Amino acid sequence: MNTDLQDYSHKRFNILIGEWVLVSPHRAKRPWQGQKEAVSNIVRPTYDPSCYLCSGNTRINGEKNPKYADVFVFTNDFAALQTDSKSFKVEDGLLMAQSEQGICKVICFSPDHSKSLADMETKDIEKVVFAWQKEYNELGENALINYVQIFENKGAVMGCSNPHPHGQIWSQSTLPNEVDKKNQQQLTYYNQNKSSLLGDYMNQELEKKERIIFENAGFVVLIPFWAVWPFETMIIPKTHQQSISDLKADDTFLFAEAVSTITKAYDKLFNTSFPYSSGIHQAPTNGKDNNHWHWHMSFYPPLLRSATVKKFMVGYEMFGSPQRDITAEIAAKMIRDLI
Amino acid sequence: MNTDLQDYSHKRFNILIGEWVLVSPHRAKRPWQGQKEAVSNIVRPTYDPSCYLCSGNTRINGEKNPKYADVFVFTNDFAALQTDSKSFKVEDGLLMAQSEQGICKVICFSPDHSKSLADMETKDIEKVVFAWQKEYNELGENALINYVQIFENKGAVMGCSNPHPHGQIWSQSTLPNEVDKKNQQQLTYYNQNKSSLLGDYMNQELEKKERIIFENAGFVVLIPFWAVWPFETMIIPKTHQQSISDLKADDTFLFAEAVSTITKAYDKLFNTSFPYSSGIHQAPTNGKDNNHWHWHMSFYPPLLRSATVKKFMVGYEMFGSPQRDITAEIAAKMIRDLI
Ligand SMILES: O=P(O)(O)O[C@H]1O[C@H](CO)[C@@H](O)[C@H](O)[C@H]1O
Ligand SMILES: O=P(O)(O)O[C@H]1O[C@H](CO)[C@@H](O)[C@H](O)[C@H]1O
Repeated sequence: MNTDLQDYSHKRFNILIGEWVLVSPHRAKRPWQGQKEAVSNIVRPTYDPSCYLCSGNTRINGEKNPKYADVFVFTNDFAALQTDSKSFKVEDGLLMAQSEQGICKVICFSPDHSKSLADMETKDIEKVVFAWQKEYNELGENALINYVQIFENKGAVMGCSNPHPHGQIWSQSTLPNEVDKKNQQQLTYYNQNKSSLLGDYMNQELEKKERIIFENAGFVVLIPFWAVWPFETMIIPKTHQQSISDLKADDTFLFAEAVSTITKAYDKLFNTSFPYSSGIHQAPTNGKDNNHWHWHMSFYPPLLRSATVKKFMVGYEMFGSPQRDITAEIAAKMIRDLI
Repeated sequence: MNTDLQDYSHKRFNILIGEWVLVSPHRAKRPWQGQKEAVSNIVRPTYDPSCYLCSGNTRINGEKNPKYADVFVFTNDFAALQTDSKSFKVEDGLLMAQSEQGICKVICFSPDHSKSLADMETKDIEKVVFAWQKEYNELGENALINYVQIFENKGAVMGCSNPHPHGQIWSQSTLPNEVDKKNQQQLTYYNQNKSSLLGDYMNQELEKKERIIFENAGFVVLIPFWAVWPFETMIIPKTHQQSISDLKADDTFLFAEAVSTITKAYDKLFNTSFPYSSGIHQAPTNGKDNNHWHWHMSFYPPLLRSATVKKFMVGYEMFGSPQRDITAEIAAKMIRDLI
């Protein structure tokens, strides 16, 4: 292991987006006197009559959820993107804007109000994977949609307004910033090397082993060298696949197992239902040749020291660049030891 | 006013960093059932014996603060960047890192523990401006330092661990991401147009008036067309100045007045001591010709609907792009009406 990386301030380069993260290993020692997050260890009921996502309940707009048995997907009642919104463009000197159309959906992972992905059986997580595949394919076929963003906000601290296990899918006409950056970085590398940027990186990590958390026949879970969030992780398919649409028969279960393993380990880390935002970055559905894409799922958890102390991405991080204290290698060891 | 921008989802282009923000005006109507922030309206004493920033008190590392009368600057006891840390480089396949040196300082705005910038007299804020100038100049002269980031995290929700009025200065060898983006965008424009990108933009805004909040003889306070945070604002010098070092005699007071005006208006908005991260982006201190730079100060406040409900930049925002609900024009009117 390169000990300089554990001892001195440095920047690490994120090859997927082409930006840097500042790492200050020695700063993990500073005392914390600031805001603490509330932790709710209340055990939730399996059914909550006031929850608008529970099976059979009525939502705010008056629609009634079906009595669903596993996964349930519906169009977001307060969608940020809509299909029927007007097309327009503003090009007025230095003011530039353009309309954006899209479809936003909500996906309930389980009818059981009390569960998170970490509490679910792998075979039930696989049903979520099937639903993600179906949505990616169907939305992707819509001529209006060129990119499908699957994500989950888990925990009140991540802006999640309902504890019922659910995620979201926002699909739209253009590539959002982060996807556009990854698109460009992967394309440049692919054109130069005729191989997958993320695949080549993963193989390097599999040799080094320092940042690997878990692997099975189909997937690797690791902390990327350039991770921003203290316990950020990434699930990468071992073979070069552009999107979750490429998952073969066994792959869906193996992917579900990877999701199960990392979310269970997270819950053990600070003995709490671990908050995070997770998301899948994958090939655009723009009908172009997207061979340079290697899909992956990332988890961005905010906690730093305990169930109540999070990492604040504020002043320097907003105006300068992301900054972390604990190194990726130490974080990987902490999580690996819990599996 | 372009009403399409008030009615339909669209993206606006941030000319300073070359990235987009998604705006969903209709979404401001959705109900909020999620996390609420704690509001502390406790009136603080003017001196707190347990505060490590109060005049004459002892800090965690045993050092004693002088009995300072206005502004007090010291080197951060838990600095993320240090001058004496080792120089090294990692270029190992797709793992790339390099050491980063720097100096981090803390700047107490006032000995009065109970005050924020919003409560201070303009002439006392001007003393803070003088200190910022001095630090920018002195740090900039250090051969190790090529960029000086001045910022403030205000409020517990912004990761501020001590309510004593203070900000920070992190200075370093290389340009952090956000500064690098602004450097490139301004340079490209300057080479093409031989004028300041931000200056030209400001003149356009002064004509339109829709997003202007306040102006005096030296400065404009506005909500940028591409603002991300609900009540984000920017203070721009009316003449083309590269850094706060270029401020002429009257300018320092006029700048202090702009800071005073916007922070006072913020406090009135939700009747609370308004949290934010603020920062000054200005010319690097790298000895190069930085004529393309037009310095400015930005405020990124997290609150959205009230003193307790903030905007969460989570799932879609982390994986896709920043997203806002209320438009810049409506937010500008709300703040302008309070002045
Ligand atoms: O230096 P402080 O005030 O202890 O820490 C605060 O500001 C820093 C710079 O924006 C952040 O890195 C920390 O996450 C935040 O808690
Ligand atoms: O759609 P929700 O769950 O109401 O809202 C949450 O996720 C969205 C997408 O990441 C964010 O824009 C909101 O700020 C957040 O509160």
